Amino acid sequence: MNADLLARFHGVIPAGGVGTRLWPLSRASAPKFLHDLTGSGSTLIRATFDRLVPLAGERIMVVTGKAHRGAVVAQLPEISDENLVLEPAPRDSAAAIGLAAAILYRRDPNIIMGSFAADQVIGPVEIFQQALVEAIHTAATGKIVTIGIHPTHASTAFGYIKAGESLDVVNAPSARGVVEFVEKPDEDTARRYLAGGGFLWNAGMFVAPVGLMLKHLEANEPDLYTGLMRIADAWDTEQRDEVMTEVWENLPKTAIDYAVAEPAAAAGDVAVIPGIFNWDDVGDFAAIGRLNSEDAEEGVITLGEAVRVYADNATGVVYSDRPRVVALIGIDDVIVVDTTDALLVTTKEHAQKVKATVEQLKERGDTSVL
Amino acid sequence: MNADLLARFHGVIPAGGVGTRLWPLSRASAPKFLHDLTGSGSTLIRATFDRLVPLAGERIMVVTGKAHRGAVVAQLPEISDENLVLEPAPRDSAAAIGLAAAILYRRDPNIIMGSFAADQVIGPVEIFQQALVEAIHTAATGKIVTIGIHPTHASTAFGYIKAGESLDVVNAPSARGVVEFVEKPDEDTARRYLAGGGFLWNAGMFVAPVGLMLKHLEANEPDLYTGLMRIADAWDTEQRDEVMTEVWENLPKTAIDYAVAEPAAAAGDVAVIPGIFNWDDVGDFAAIGRLNSEDAEEGVITLGEAVRVYADNATGVVYSDRPRVVALIGIDDVIVVDTTDALLVTTKEHAQKVKATVEQLKERGDTSVL
Repeated sequence: MNADLLARFHGVIPAGGVGTRLWPLSRASAPKFLHDLTGSGSTLIRATFDRLVPLAGERIMVVTGKAHRGAVVAQLPEISDENLVLEPAPRDSAAAIGLAAAILYRRDPNIIMGSFAADQVIGPVEIFQQALVEAIHTAATGKIVTIGIHPTHASTAFGYIKAGESLDVVNAPSARGVVEFVEKPDEDTARRYLAGGGFLWNAGMFVAPVGLMLKHLEANEPDLYTGLMRIADAWDTEQRDEVMTEVWENLPKTAIDYAVAEPAAAAGDVAVIPGIFNWDDVGDFAAIGRLNSEDAEEGVITLGEAVRVYADNATGVVYSDRPRVVALIGIDDVIVVDTTDALLVTTKEHAQKVKATVEQLKERGDTSVL
Repeated sequence: MNADLLARFHGVIPAGGVGTRLWPLSRASAPKFLHDLTGSGSTLIRATFDRLVPLAGERIMVVTGKAHRGAVVAQLPEISDENLVLEPAPRDSAAAIGLAAAILYRRDPNIIMGSFAADQVIGPVEIFQQALVEAIHTAATGKIVTIGIHPTHASTAFGYIKAGESLDVVNAPSARGVVEFVEKPDEDTARRYLAGGGFLWNAGMFVAPVGLMLKHLEANEPDLYTGLMRIADAWDTEQRDEVMTEVWENLPKTAIDYAVAEPAAAAGDVAVIPGIFNWDDVGDFAAIGRLNSEDAEEGVITLGEAVRVYADNATGVVYSDRPRVVALIGIDDVIVVDTTDALLVTTKEHAQKVKATVEQLKERGDTSVL
């Protein structure tokens, strides 16, 4: 790959979501990206960082909550202060990714940024990196490039990308235009997408010249753009904290999809590289079961160093962070998540409903365990 | 009731069984009888004691393991040292009940003892006491009297008593002879017993003159009898500990049913009072569900002061002794028992299988949680 082009690439890792469907393992004080959910020995954020290093070197910026500073630095001890962007409070993905774009733009307007959520599981890494190289080449032609995931089933949990014509980009043979982004479909529509082909899952991966990101942000969310540029202007000065405190809490809260991706697609500025690697957003405990299925012992997956599981006619997933015995008798596909102050017992079939339980806990004011 | 006759009555409470099917709530260090399993506010041993007080006053002897001395005294602060018999190690029910009989016989050969396990749930208490009064009157005619439970279903978990002719005992109109004790039947046999009538559940309640108990023990288990009498002779002397230590560990291990009840029935010496009170031996967590069903909130029974349960399309029983949230989603009849070092997750249907899991834990050497 062209060394000059690669030198322009800068990774961005927004590390924001709590991962509500993985409660009580994942929670405000210990969000999903700080856990090793695949038994790989790496937390999700560490694995995300490591995937980018071969292409980005030290040029990887992490955007996360102030509260997670210590945990993130413990995971990524090599990260420099200038690459660690701390949010005083969550303001959704457009603010997080837009701020990274604005800071990088002020440092060097030629930067091509690549934004990858901190809590996805991807492999083999080499296939991902090949797609990323194609995405960088395509971005250099003046596109916002998303890496779309080949659907493996008719999922209703993800938004889709409708791919268009091949773009004939040099060194990016699989680059195609994007007709549109579509919201999470119902089951019939999802089945139609899968059968018809040409639809990819939107994994929220964006590779683009920072200037192009900001151009679309300015056009669609001018207040957000203005605020972010004010912060970026102060970022590498002594005024950083003062301006951040003043501006951040008044920024519009919106998703990067609405603020940039969808309108940019409508303007013909978005391309897609189909990713043929394995991908999982570890959306719930059923996903954790899938991702660890090779480590199952007689149908039971155990997460946690110290827990000892005894199963009698039972299968499923058990997590416990403590040295205790967990006995399962006569339940299939059970999910047991055992933490100091909260215990979840459900089944794989109901794994998506954990979110509703968390909302119920919130409503009842039982927030100390969230 | 005849005051002289009542003055001869002495309660005996063997408090021995661990209650393996209630693991991990019930365990060697905190057996079943030390728990309040009905939400009554009383532990099972306290409730057993209180049921006997109106008839026995302070004349109630408890036979339990040395290790439980502190817990038992905490539950029964009024118990005197002479009524607390401590076993160095468990040697089955014939040794425990036989030793009580022998000690009481040495103190007063006219005593009528009534032995009632520490871990059964009975109500209404008054109906039980009426049956006990009939049993004492019948015992005074020279019988070993068992109180049999009217079967409410074709249980295969209990032994049965085959009742014979009415005995025409004054003040004990429901006393009948016992033809035989029969072992736990298979399902067909249990259904036949229920349909035919005349069969009662054997709850291990025995009311008898101590001399008659010892006579049958001597005839059927002479070594056990001799050993127990040696201990009884030393009991109220300074040699108690020395003799107990020497003799106890060599005593034959057998159940009171084999050592006394069955051969006594064959000799025509056993009577039965049918008990028409409610009775439960709290044999497993399904029983705990039944016994607390009135306290269910939306199908979930919660045991434990500090636990907060959230159920979404779930029913069952949750026990936790700690202040934590337990969330159940989409499982019916689930049983969750949460203790510091062990967690059980099963369903009511499989409640009886807890015993097998405990045996598996024992086999694998994971005994610290038993």
